[in-house]
Amino acid sequence: MHPFDHAIQLQPLGDGSYQAETSPAYANMVGPFGGVTCAVLLNAALQHPDKLGQPVALTVNFAAPIADGPYTVTARAARTNRSTQHWVIEARQASGVVALATAVFATRRPTWSASEVQAPQGLPAPEDLARMPSEKRPPWVAAYDMRFTEGDVFSGFDGQEQPDSRSCQWLRDDPPRPLDFASLASISDCFFPRIFLRRRRVAPIGTVSITTYFHADEAALAAQGRHYLIGTARGQKFHNGFFDQSGEMWSHDGHLLASTHQTVYFKD
Amino acid sequence: MHPFDHAIQLQPLGDGSYQAETSPAYANMVGPFGGVTCAVLLNAALQHPDKLGQPVALTVNFAAPIADGPYTVTARAARTNRSTQHWVIEARQASGVVALATAVFATRRPTWSASEVQAPQGLPAPEDLARMPSEKRPPWVAAYDMRFTEGDVFSGFDGQEQPDSRSCQWLRDDPPRPLDFASLASISDCFFPRIFLRRRRVAPIGTVSITTYFHADEAALAAQGRHYLIGTARGQKFHNGFFDQSGEMWSHDGHLLASTHQTVYFKD
Repeated sequence: MHPFDHAIQLQPLGDGSYQAETSPAYANMVGPFGGVTCAVLLNAALQHPDKLGQPVALTVNFAAPIADGPYTVTARAARTNRSTQHWVIEARQASGVVALATAVFATRRPTWSASEVQAPQGLPAPEDLARMPSEKRPPWVAAYDMRFTEGDVFSGFDGQEQPDSRSCQWLRDDPPRPLDFASLASISDCFFPRIFLRRRRVAPIGTVSITTYFHADEAALAAQGRHYLIGTARGQKFHNGFFDQSGEMWSHDGHLLASTHQTVYFKD
Repeated sequence: MHPFDHAIQLQPLGDGSYQAETSPAYANMVGPFGGVTCAVLLNAALQHPDKLGQPVALTVNFAAPIADGPYTVTARAARTNRSTQHWVIEARQASGVVALATAVFATRRPTWSASEVQAPQGLPAPEDLARMPSEKRPPWVAAYDMRFTEGDVFSGFDGQEQPDSRSCQWLRDDPPRPLDFASLASISDCFFPRIFLRRRRVAPIGTVSITTYFHADEAALAAQGRHYLIGTARGQKFHNGFFDQSGEMWSHDGHLLASTHQTVYFKD
């Protein structure tokens, strides 16, 4: 079993509740990598017998650090319409609620389609770029193969403030794994905190809320398979303890698979 | 009482539940303008005796059309930490859940701050621009004074597809009203559906999920007062029944007050 599948595994407890367990392979500085928590919460809806269609939107609020070990996830379809479905998903430990999510699922049908944003052009192939080292990083970093063309944060911690926090990278699961909605939800949280890039130094941070919009359908996921994705991200505003950043996850051939936004607590 | 304050009024029913009522002044094609629904849901947390700090993030999922008339809103602080608080807020009518929200509140403290995105420069003053007419539009449109410098959607419905859906406008409540968190949540949903701009024609649409990140604190709201805001927006991807769009709400003097993102159902 791929370590990611192990990390997002759910044991049904009945009534839409599941037992999950943190995975050492995806540990972060404190608690698990947020992307995997997103995937676990989404998975509770994906696995649910009431599920209708595919994910269109997922918002996860990180309410408190998740302690290493088991936790329960409860998914409830709060509203099911003809072609859309609205979920509320909660993760709990003894301390109370540790993560809260809402998700929108939908059955999609073919319509006029177009992309207004465009993938970066003329990138070197991932095979021609060095992989970002994962030594001295939290364990989850080694679970992703990341190759930067811009904004390789850890290479430049000189404390010299920069005017922007843009980054561009190839990335995929390591070992490679076919892309699905759960892994797309997770990898969409792979963008390092933009404050590290702006200030070129680490700072205590924690994402408080992340929203990912899925543009990929089953066909787009299948076409992506185990290829590298392209990830682009930038910050918006840093103000009195919080900043927001936005990113895009592109397929290997330049189709937008997901847009993602988050707001992050920071200390200076 | 300002019509907006009337529209977001809540009667406490005890236990964090409130009675709300749709307002004809903010009616949309079907049900109320989504922005006002955001404001009502946020208001249930703002009014709640357990409230800690100020809103940092708000996600509202529109689960079903809200029928004209009363509805109940229940706000629950699912987790309260030392400086952050996580809310789950539900709106219900006889048909079941009609809207679902999560919100993150926080007490902010002064930190290093910076804006990476920049407000549009050199705009004509709002007084020198024509107000967008609101005749033949849903009632809520007349509740906002909107003056476009780019992307005045209703002026060009010729069905000639455009490569982008950018817009830039001045806007504020009509009659003018001092900006607060509730009205900022509402006005952040004022951006017309990007598909109208891309295809230069109307289409049946409905926002399914909107997320707004608040950068404004009480001081920034006070400094904005009744001035016009600047709103900028664009689309990302339109694909098989859903598209996403992002926008910014700037103060009259160019400070980012909120970033906002939404995914929208559409038919063609």
